[in-house]
Amino acid sequence: MNRTPLTKALSDTERTRLRRMREKGRTDRAVLDEVLAAGFLCHVGVMVDGHPMVVPTVYGADGHHLYFHGSVASRSLVAAPGTTVCVTVTHVDGLVLARSVFEHGVNYRCAMVYGTPRPVTDPEEKLAGLRLLTEQAAPGQWDYARRPSRKELAATALLALSLEEASVKMREGGPDDGDGPDAELDVWAGVLPVTTRFGTPVPDEALREGIALPEHLASPRT
Amino acid sequence: MNRTPLTKALSDTERTRLRRMREKGRTDRAVLDEVLAAGFLCHVGVMVDGHPMVVPTVYGADGHHLYFHGSVASRSLVAAPGTTVCVTVTHVDGLVLARSVFEHGVNYRCAMVYGTPRPVTDPEEKLAGLRLLTEQAAPGQWDYARRPSRKELAATALLALSLEEASVKMREGGPDDGDGPDAELDVWAGVLPVTTRFGTPVPDEALREGIALPEHLASPRT
Repeated sequence: MNRTPLTKALSDTERTRLRRMREKGRTDRAVLDEVLAAGFLCHVGVMVDGHPMVVPTVYGADGHHLYFHGSVASRSLVAAPGTTVCVTVTHVDGLVLARSVFEHGVNYRCAMVYGTPRPVTDPEEKLAGLRLLTEQAAPGQWDYARRPSRKELAATALLALSLEEASVKMREGGPDDGDGPDAELDVWAGVLPVTTRFGTPVPDEALREGIALPEHLASPRT
Repeated sequence: MNRTPLTKALSDTERTRLRRMREKGRTDRAVLDEVLAAGFLCHVGVMVDGHPMVVPTVYGADGHHLYFHGSVASRSLVAAPGTTVCVTVTHVDGLVLARSVFEHGVNYRCAMVYGTPRPVTDPEEKLAGLRLLTEQAAPGQWDYARRPSRKELAATALLALSLEEASVKMREGGPDDGDGPDAELDVWAGVLPVTTRFGTPVPDEALREGIALPEHLASPRT
């Protein structure tokens, strides 16, 4: 029993088409933007010397592009421009505890973006991309901390990936064995929610006396 | 300023060697086991039709192998046995808020395992692998829920990846600009901790009356 019917992916290409019946695809472009807006860490998959490599890095998205730091993938992307990547953003929302081990699963939201990232060279676009990336992880910091100097900007490798070819998959709701024979078992079933939260800011040991925590960091974030 | 000196990776192969100065590698095998034990979701990178694909899935690790569901990667791994993969497990521990945007970063622990996954066909190893995977996500469920039938076991694609070729990278501690000229700025600096927690279990709508939440799910987990 699938709570959400199988629909086609955002873009209907060979690699974004959903194959498995239990995966739930979404056609809505707004859902892609929502999933990308809900996080700041992505996993970039890239070929290095003929083998796949999956590297975590921070990103920012603006509805058209996903910007991510190229430095982590310097071994591949900078060395070989034109390389295709897959950038995946996953949020785990809960563990699905069914009556049977077989029906156990995970509630999640996952966006996968495919394409050839473009190195951002225009200083203005680079600044805008870094702003997105910074604000997505820590809203308020771009206007608060010291912005990149020209030298720092030049030393930063930023890549832009179009959101044109992307798919979103998600699972939500309870276990799927509530209407089968296993429902007769004396086994508790439900969902164990998983949440990611920000804690209380920890000041740097080297922080000078008298510098107060700014407002945008003082209010608890979820 | 790197708080942790650069050391060589667990295995010294071309792809596990660390290149970037700011990345911190660990040689300690126990650290790999710790990072893998701290999560249950990995990102599998695999080549599909000449392009990388990064798919999230659940895993279990026993110090020798990482077991993961092959179903999510059925388009590739099952179709092309012998394909190499990169399986990455990442934990985000905090946002590093420096005085300058340039020095902003993430405290994280990341394990990357490389190799050719082996489809698990032996029923005993498959059961043991599924047990690992189930218990890593939801300890206690293997002995509580209904275990896989022979038919379900046959329908489950499980892959085993040796932990022989792996690297661990991590970052911890405060921002790196506490001893430079930026330390003079009136800018707060420190770390915003990030934590992932399990919430209160939500019973399935179809749960029969009178089935109590079992002990292993009742105590709060972190």
